[in-house]
Amino acid sequence: MAEVRNKQVVLRDYVSGFPKESDMNIVEGTTILKLPQGSNDVLLKNLYLSCDPYMRMLMTKVEGLDVFGTYTPGSPLTGYGVSKVLESGHPDYKKGDLVWGSTKWEEFSLVSPTQILFKIEHTDVPLSYYTGILGMPGMTAYAGFFEVGSPKKGENVFVSAASGAVGQLVGQFAKLTDCYVVGSAGSKEKVDLLKNKLGFDEAFNYKEESDLNATLKRYFPEGIDIYFENVGGKTLDAVLPNMRVLGRIPVCGMVSQYNLTQPEGVTNLANLIFKRIRMQGFIVGEFYHLYPKFLEFVLPHIREGKVVYVEDIAEGLENGPAALVGLYSGRNVGKQVVVVARD
Amino acid sequence: MAEVRNKQVVLRDYVSGFPKESDMNIVEGTTILKLPQGSNDVLLKNLYLSCDPYMRMLMTKVEGLDVFGTYTPGSPLTGYGVSKVLESGHPDYKKGDLVWGSTKWEEFSLVSPTQILFKIEHTDVPLSYYTGILGMPGMTAYAGFFEVGSPKKGENVFVSAASGAVGQLVGQFAKLTDCYVVGSAGSKEKVDLLKNKLGFDEAFNYKEESDLNATLKRYFPEGIDIYFENVGGKTLDAVLPNMRVLGRIPVCGMVSQYNLTQPEGVTNLANLIFKRIRMQGFIVGEFYHLYPKFLEFVLPHIREGKVVYVEDIAEGLENGPAALVGLYSGRNVGKQVVVVARD
Ligand SMILES: NC(=O)c1ccc[n+]([C@@H]2O[C@H](COP(=O)([O-])OP(=O)(O)OC[C@H]3O[C@@H](n4cnc5c(N)ncnc54)[C@H](OP(=O)(O)O)[C@@H]3O)[C@@H](O)[C@H]2O)c1
Ligand SMILES: NC(=O)c1ccc[n+]([C@@H]2O[C@H](COP(=O)([O-])OP(=O)(O)OC[C@H]3O[C@@H](n4cnc5c(N)ncnc54)[C@H](OP(=O)(O)O)[C@@H]3O)[C@@H](O)[C@H]2O)c1
Repeated sequence: MAEVRNKQVVLRDYVSGFPKESDMNIVEGTTILKLPQGSNDVLLKNLYLSCDPYMRMLMTKVEGLDVFGTYTPGSPLTGYGVSKVLESGHPDYKKGDLVWGSTKWEEFSLVSPTQILFKIEHTDVPLSYYTGILGMPGMTAYAGFFEVGSPKKGENVFVSAASGAVGQLVGQFAKLTDCYVVGSAGSKEKVDLLKNKLGFDEAFNYKEESDLNATLKRYFPEGIDIYFENVGGKTLDAVLPNMRVLGRIPVCGMVSQYNLTQPEGVTNLANLIFKRIRMQGFIVGEFYHLYPKFLEFVLPHIREGKVVYVEDIAEGLENGPAALVGLYSGRNVGKQVVVVARD
Repeated sequence: MAEVRNKQVVLRDYVSGFPKESDMNIVEGTTILKLPQGSNDVLLKNLYLSCDPYMRMLMTKVEGLDVFGTYTPGSPLTGYGVSKVLESGHPDYKKGDLVWGSTKWEEFSLVSPTQILFKIEHTDVPLSYYTGILGMPGMTAYAGFFEVGSPKKGENVFVSAASGAVGQLVGQFAKLTDCYVVGSAGSKEKVDLLKNKLGFDEAFNYKEESDLNATLKRYFPEGIDIYFENVGGKTLDAVLPNMRVLGRIPVCGMVSQYNLTQPEGVTNLANLIFKRIRMQGFIVGEFYHLYPKFLEFVLPHIREGKVVYVEDIAEGLENGPAALVGLYSGRNVGKQVVVVARD
C-alpha cells in the first residue's frame, strides 16, 4: 500500500489582526492512499483550492461568530476545492469522479460526503471554475443578487469588491437584468477590468476617492436601488444616504472588517427608516438547492461568452498562504485559486 | 363673520442638537372661522395633538433626510391630531365630523383632505386614543410587528422604548401572538408599567445596565428572533450579537440618534451575515390601507380590556413645547398627548 507525500498548509496558532503568510506552515507529511476499512468517506486528490475571505474568521476564536466552526491550530486549513475521487466508501461517488466542495489544504484528503460535495458533470469549461463561477462564489452572486436583491429591469446597482470572485458576477448578472451597474475596486487595473472586460457601466477606485458620498452621488444622481454589500464599514456608511426609497442591500460580506479588532462604526443607519430599505444578510449554504437551476442559467452564458470570469491562479500549495492573505490587501485580481495539481 | 383667537406653537428657527422649549413660541394670532370661497379644504377645531419623535427631524434642514418635509420657521408646527370639522369644502367630510390625521399646532386649522385624514367612526373609546393606539402609533406597531416582523408563535421578542406610544403596543401584540417579550425603558416607573400593566414577560431599565450585551444575554439566553427597533445606537449594537439565526429587525425609529450631530457608530453589523438577519425600515404611511383591518383587530381587544393603553396627557397648547421636547429625555410615560380642547 503506497505511502505518499502529503504536503499540507497548517495554521500555527489563532490569528489576531491581519493574517500573515507566517501564520501558516507548509508541512511535509505522508499519507496512505487507502480508505480505512468500512469507511463511508471519500479519498480525494486535491486539484484546485479556493481562497475565500470567510477563511479569516475561522482563524480566530470569537464567541458567537463561530457559525462556520474554527480552525484547529496544528491542523491543515479546510476550505472549498476541486478534487478527484481516488477511492469512495459512499455509493454517490466512485473512483475517477470529479467533485467540488469541502476539502482540506493538502494534497490528499479524506472527506465525509455529509459535507458539501457536488459531483462535477460538465468538463467542457475550465475545471478551476468550480472554485469560482461554477462553485460557491458563483452561487453566492446568483442567490444574493436574484433571490435576496430582487432586482428589476432598469434599476441602479452598486457592487463593492466588484472585481472579485463574487462581485464580477454580480455586475454581469445585473447587466443581464438590464440594470445600470457601477463597481468599486482597489486599483486602476481592476477598474479597467470592470469597465472593459466585465461590462460594468462605470467603475471607480475607492482608494482614490476622498469623499465616497460625493463619488456615489456622481455615479448615482438618482440613487441606488440595490447595493450588493461585500466590504462593510466606510463604504456601507457612504452608501446608506445614497440609497433610493425601497432599496435593498443583500449583505454578502464585510471583508474590510474581518481583520479589525474594533470594527468601524456605521452611522447612517437611520436611512433604513426614511428610505424603507431592506438590508438582509445571507449565507450561500441556504441556497445550494438552487445549484442545478443556477447551472442551467449560467453554463449557456459561459459557453456563448456572454458571461466571462477572471481568475488569479497561484501555482503550488506552497504559494497558498500568500495567495490567501493577499485577499485582505486586494492583491488578487479576480477569483484567487491555488493549483495543487492539474489532474 | 367671527374673528377668533388662534393660539399657535411656532418654530422660531431651525434647531441643532436637543430641542428646547424656547425653540418654540406661543403666538396669539387670530383667524376667521370661514372657509375661503370655493375651497376644497376642511376647517378644523383641534382637540388633541400628538407628540411624535419624528417631529424633531422636521426642525432641521438636512439634505436627503427631508422625506417628511421640514418645518418653516415662523409657522406653526404640523403634526398628527384629533379634530372636529367646523366647515368642509370636501364631500367626504361634513360639519361635526370627528377626524384624525394631519393638522397644525394651533387651535383652528385649515387642512387639505389630500393629506392624511381619517374619519372617526367609533366614539365609545377615548377620543385621544386616535392620536395613539387608534391612530398613527397604533398602525405603526401593528404594521411593524405583524407585516415587517413576521412573528411566529413562541418567538423571542425584544422592544426598545417599550413603554412609549408604539412600544407598549408591540409588546401586547407580541403577547397576543404567544411570544416571549422583553422591553427596555428609561425609568423604574416605566419598567413597573411594562411588567405589571402591559403584560411584558420581563423589562429592564437600560440606563442602569452597564453592559447591555450581558443584560440581553441574561434575558435571551437563546437569542432574539425579533428586535423591534425604536432607539438605534448603542442598543442596536448590543442587540446584533444577540440575534438568532433568521432573526428580523423591523426598523421603526432611532430616537436616540435624532438629536445627535454625529450619530453613534454601529459596529456589529457583520452579524447580519452570519445570522442571516433581515433588517428592514418602514414608514407607517405605506400601510394605511390596512387601517380598517387594524381597527377590526384592535377595537374588540380594547373593549374587552385585553389591550390597554397608557397615555401621558398635557393640558393646553401652551404646554405643548415642553411635552414635545420631553420625548427626547423620556419625560413622557406612555403616549404623549396635548389637549387643546375637549370638544
Ligand atoms: N454570504 C456568503 O455566503 C458569502 C459567500 C462568499 C463570499 N462572501 C463574501 O463576499 C465578499 C467577496 O468575496 P470574494 O470571494 O468575491 O472575495 P474577492 O473579492 O475575490 O477578494 C477579496 C477582495 O476584497 C477587497 N478588500 C479587501 N480588503 C478590503 C478593504 N479593507 N476595503 C475594501 N475592500 C477590500 C479586495 O479587493 P479591492 O482591491 O477591490 O479592495 C480583495 O480583492 C467577501 O466579503 C466574502 O466574505 C460571502
Ligand atoms: N417608522 C414609522 O413610521 C414610525 C412611526 C411612529 C414612530 N416611529 C418611531 O418609533 C419610535 C417610538 O416612537 P413613539 O411615538 O412610541 O415615542 P415614545 O416611545 O412614546 O417616546 C419617545 C421615547 O423614546 C425614549 N428615548 C428618548 N431618548 C432616548 C435615548 N437617547 N435612548 C433610548 N431611548 C430614548 C424615551 O423613553 P425611555 O424613558 O424609555 O428612554 C421616550 O419616552 C421612535 O423612534 C419614532 O421615531 C416610527
